[in-house]
Amino acid sequence: MSTHPLDQALALAHSDLRAGLFTGATSADYWNMVGPFGGTTAAVMLQAVLKHPDLLGAPVALTVNYAAALEAGPFELLAVPVRTNRSTQHWTIQMSQADAEGRPQVVSTGTAVTALRRDTWGASDLSMPEVPPPIEVERLSIGPGKVAWLDRYEMRPISGTIPTRWDGSGDHSETRMWLRDAPARPLDFAALAALCDCFYPRVWLRRAKPVPIGTVSITTYFHVDAAQLAEVGDGYLLGRATGQQFRNGYFDQAAQLWSEAGALLATSNQIVYFKE
Amino acid sequence: MSTHPLDQALALAHSDLRAGLFTGATSADYWNMVGPFGGTTAAVMLQAVLKHPDLLGAPVALTVNYAAALEAGPFELLAVPVRTNRSTQHWTIQMSQADAEGRPQVVSTGTAVTALRRDTWGASDLSMPEVPPPIEVERLSIGPGKVAWLDRYEMRPISGTIPTRWDGSGDHSETRMWLRDAPARPLDFAALAALCDCFYPRVWLRRAKPVPIGTVSITTYFHVDAAQLAEVGDGYLLGRATGQQFRNGYFDQAAQLWSEAGALLATSNQIVYFKE
Repeated sequence: MSTHPLDQALALAHSDLRAGLFTGATSADYWNMVGPFGGTTAAVMLQAVLKHPDLLGAPVALTVNYAAALEAGPFELLAVPVRTNRSTQHWTIQMSQADAEGRPQVVSTGTAVTALRRDTWGASDLSMPEVPPPIEVERLSIGPGKVAWLDRYEMRPISGTIPTRWDGSGDHSETRMWLRDAPARPLDFAALAALCDCFYPRVWLRRAKPVPIGTVSITTYFHVDAAQLAEVGDGYLLGRATGQQFRNGYFDQAAQLWSEAGALLATSNQIVYFKE
Repeated sequence: MSTHPLDQALALAHSDLRAGLFTGATSADYWNMVGPFGGTTAAVMLQAVLKHPDLLGAPVALTVNYAAALEAGPFELLAVPVRTNRSTQHWTIQMSQADAEGRPQVVSTGTAVTALRRDTWGASDLSMPEVPPPIEVERLSIGPGKVAWLDRYEMRPISGTIPTRWDGSGDHSETRMWLRDAPARPLDFAALAALCDCFYPRVWLRRAKPVPIGTVSITTYFHVDAAQLAEVGDGYLLGRATGQQFRNGYFDQAAQLWSEAGALLATSNQIVYFKE
């Protein structure tokens, strides 16, 4: 059985496990235009936490800041549990790469909170939009020569698909789509962290204009435990993303992912640089 | 002229300015039930960045993680510009307090992104709700014996005010209110960071039940520059907050703050622990 490309991208060797030092490498399978897909960067930052021997519980919150462009090749990760309480644990995470002179430079920073969760009252005030089932929605066809990471996701856009005419005609910033890993893969926290970043930049939809962009920071809240993720298996998720405020070079986009059964699995926000 | 209580709460001495080491102290004026109001903690973490001699630009994103309860008294802040690019700068921030044996313990972690912004195309896809003007909305009256920080804000709730009967009758989680510092104070980034945390926990509204809670992590995106904040002056902001997903001990709440003129100044999300 071959390893799933996401598991290859998430593979970490530990140079000093107790100290939280790991090494990994960027994956050609998830290459974007000038660097790796930011979703896999977020996922592998979280993976360092998940692989740490002192881990308490499961992820509740993850923030990843994209401080510099990642080069193709190896990177180092440092995940430190800076504070461990009875049921929560606070993490700092840094990714670094050697520069031309071989000196390590920080390329991403992050924080995470993990926690032991227990059964409580619950409710959702963000119900899943009514949409046709995945089987009735056509899969987005990626033409040859497009970026690699798009082939790593099965996307079935219901509305707000990427513009085919860049004519400045945009008037909203909401996309709804079914999506999952391609090939299909059982859902886990790292995969979910990456899926939260699968929406193309809202400014492209809003303006129907492909301006240069780059995510600066992403924050994801996880609303499920491992058992609930296991129930989703390799099923489709419904994703919704919308822009909020676009002004002076930055915009924020909010995203939600539901299971096909209607459970809100994760809510995510990011702030994105754009030019012009 | 006396110093505004927020400026007292934000006052920092620098033990080693170039290294980004500051000292401050919790403020009785902003005391909450068992610790300081989390909004001022976020604000003073940001303040360390703003006072750093190497600061580039103005805040775009701020994440603060509440790792442990803060005790009344002094604290140390460490703000480090880990990566400075042409127009963006990435920060890590830590707050620590001495434990009973005098050893420094991390109580909060954070990251921030600051940036030089320039004029671009802009739009808002989150327009200000239609509400009556602040003058027509009654100010929330805080009874004696309530927590101190509530007196530091002038809150004029339009809808979703804090329940007066805790009878389990809640059916939504949205609050809309006009608010500003009390006494009124010209808006700046630190004040805005604190204002984003002014909404009482959504789970109390949703359930009409005052269960124990604690914010675990807050992320705020700033959509304005200093000149735009100066235009707001000491005017009212319209705040809106809503819960999203409540499950197994945690819920997330999304908040937005508009100027009275209708400009979306900040969007903020937090994840909150709750009991039962």
